[in-house]
Amino acid sequence: MITVPALLLNEQICRRNIRNMAEKVKRNNVTLRPHFKTHQSHETGRWFREEGTQKITVSSFRMAQYFAEDGWNDILVAFPVNILEIDTINQLAKEIKLSLLVESADVVRFLQEHLESAVDVYIKVDAGLHRTGVSWDDHKTFNEILRSLENSSLTSFRGFLTHSGHSYRARSMNESASVHNESITRMISLKNKFLPEYPDLIISVGDTPTCSIMDDFSMVDEIRPGNYVFYDVTQSIIGSCTPDQIAVAMACPVVATHKERNEIVIYGGSVHFAKDSIVDTNGITIYGKVVRNSGNGWGEIIEGSYLKKLSQEHGIVYLPDEAINDYSPGDIIKILPVHSCTTANLMKGYLTVDGRKINMML
Amino acid sequence: MITVPALLLNEQICRRNIRNMAEKVKRNNVTLRPHFKTHQSHETGRWFREEGTQKITVSSFRMAQYFAEDGWNDILVAFPVNILEIDTINQLAKEIKLSLLVESADVVRFLQEHLESAVDVYIKVDAGLHRTGVSWDDHKTFNEILRSLENSSLTSFRGFLTHSGHSYRARSMNESASVHNESITRMISLKNKFLPEYPDLIISVGDTPTCSIMDDFSMVDEIRPGNYVFYDVTQSIIGSCTPDQIAVAMACPVVATHKERNEIVIYGGSVHFAKDSIVDTNGITIYGKVVRNSGNGWGEIIEGSYLKKLSQEHGIVYLPDEAINDYSPGDIIKILPVHSCTTANLMKGYLTVDGRKINMML
Repeated sequence: MITVPALLLNEQICRRNIRNMAEKVKRNNVTLRPHFKTHQSHETGRWFREEGTQKITVSSFRMAQYFAEDGWNDILVAFPVNILEIDTINQLAKEIKLSLLVESADVVRFLQEHLESAVDVYIKVDAGLHRTGVSWDDHKTFNEILRSLENSSLTSFRGFLTHSGHSYRARSMNESASVHNESITRMISLKNKFLPEYPDLIISVGDTPTCSIMDDFSMVDEIRPGNYVFYDVTQSIIGSCTPDQIAVAMACPVVATHKERNEIVIYGGSVHFAKDSIVDTNGITIYGKVVRNSGNGWGEIIEGSYLKKLSQEHGIVYLPDEAINDYSPGDIIKILPVHSCTTANLMKGYLTVDGRKINMML
Repeated sequence: MITVPALLLNEQICRRNIRNMAEKVKRNNVTLRPHFKTHQSHETGRWFREEGTQKITVSSFRMAQYFAEDGWNDILVAFPVNILEIDTINQLAKEIKLSLLVESADVVRFLQEHLESAVDVYIKVDAGLHRTGVSWDDHKTFNEILRSLENSSLTSFRGFLTHSGHSYRARSMNESASVHNESITRMISLKNKFLPEYPDLIISVGDTPTCSIMDDFSMVDEIRPGNYVFYDVTQSIIGSCTPDQIAVAMACPVVATHKERNEIVIYGGSVHFAKDSIVDTNGITIYGKVVRNSGNGWGEIIEGSYLKKLSQEHGIVYLPDEAINDYSPGDIIKILPVHSCTTANLMKGYLTVDGRKINMML
């Protein structure tokens, strides 16, 4: 019985999401290196393995250790390498095939002075997001990093990596496609420039919106989507998924009702959902969408309902007239999260709709 | 040595904050029932005990259990009671003096049918925030709840409680004061109305901005501030504290620099800081302010610097020209959080500036 906020997981939907992407990459003859930061769970990771995944992406060395413990032995830490963690890096590089991400020759030199085992190195490219990475047209810096990589046999250049995170700002499939196309064009120009010197170099791109929507990945060698394992309200608004592809929902106790303003108060706040919000198609800022209860799982979205406000432990849900009388204190209300990655990260575990607990990295 | 994001705690500043509030309540002859959701730590809780605190507030039954384990035996769970947790409530009520918060007669009736030990009951009043609680002028509902409370000796009416959370929207001491005054006036009118029938009823108010700024608490019986144990950037912008009263700072590894746009990339994202932001006095949305390094601790704010953007694991820090050259990959940058409660909740522990680890509730 659910008595406190819980993150429900529909295994069937989740496995279907994993399978769909696996089949898409097979059709495209591209390598899938899914990002595991969304689910952070050994068990869910095994569902990927069953669909043929052998290489993965994570966002921290701690996460790399967690998945290495479960037998993953080809892991990319897709985060500008934090040289302060050199001891952990050496430990990991001894045990698995470890790939690092760099964006400066200084960091490469530090690694070469301190590495004890060989690693693969990707260079981070800023293909338009302007968050981090070397600007796609800054050939001088690419040359500098590439020269420095050659100074040691412990650092092998693997390829160019980018993350088109600005696809999250898209609000339609067309917008996502145009972000993807621009980013890919830039990456290809980079590849063509350096291919004569580095015939084995690969291009690695990845973000769930473009990987979900696009169907042609020719010219790309590796993709690294992560969120598609669960999807969420943001992805459905961008157009990367339909609501029935969303594999997780929060289950929260109702603690008070304020029918005169069409609101109910739930036990479930920013310490459970995280504080990610999105402006929905009606121009309202929302933190989640309410779905119908359906046994241990959930059904369709209740049109016009949304998670309106989040305090630390409370949430305020808006419900239209036809739904407001369906909830009383002691009931459980189910809500699709705006951003499944950060919600999962806070909840630290799943409850499947069959009533099974699934652990995450703590 | 710090190698991954850490939450630094300056014990001296923290103890001074605790002491200042303790002295203020003594001068005012009001009961202090501090909210422990900010620090969530046995050890920090003991610093309050050393200053005379005996009663505390928490936001969940789990947190009540955690502090009961460390000897606290008068705990208010200041959250509309979640009746699904009745087993935990009964367990707690057997061991300690437990106070619950209600806002409907239905919930009172449920409690009376299922309680096994006596509890104190506060009624939640909406004195203007419109988040939760019975509207301060809705005497009909107050009467209904009060009548229902009399049906059992297990539920003793203690008083009226409100949380003026809208004081957080204030941007000056004057604005905070006006929120406080309005809220207090309404609570007093409520008290006066029901005092003839309930001569022992108390008024409990609380939020750090008003409790920090106000100096006259006559007419109020109990205050429940919490955040003041650490304060944060939000409180300093509201005017509840000065920057040198902020007792926590994040320490984050620098992983990349982009001097051409005055930005550095840090290992430290929304999974460390949480995603709370505030519009600072220059109209810029910020997620934290950078402070100078000073040994194991930190010094003054670097004027014009701020945490600009947060992804899941990355942060982007803006630094003015005079500071941008001070940071390279492998350095540690220190940042005052916008909201210390949610940052602490994610970090799950502290590192004191003397190098000691302090555990939190897990």
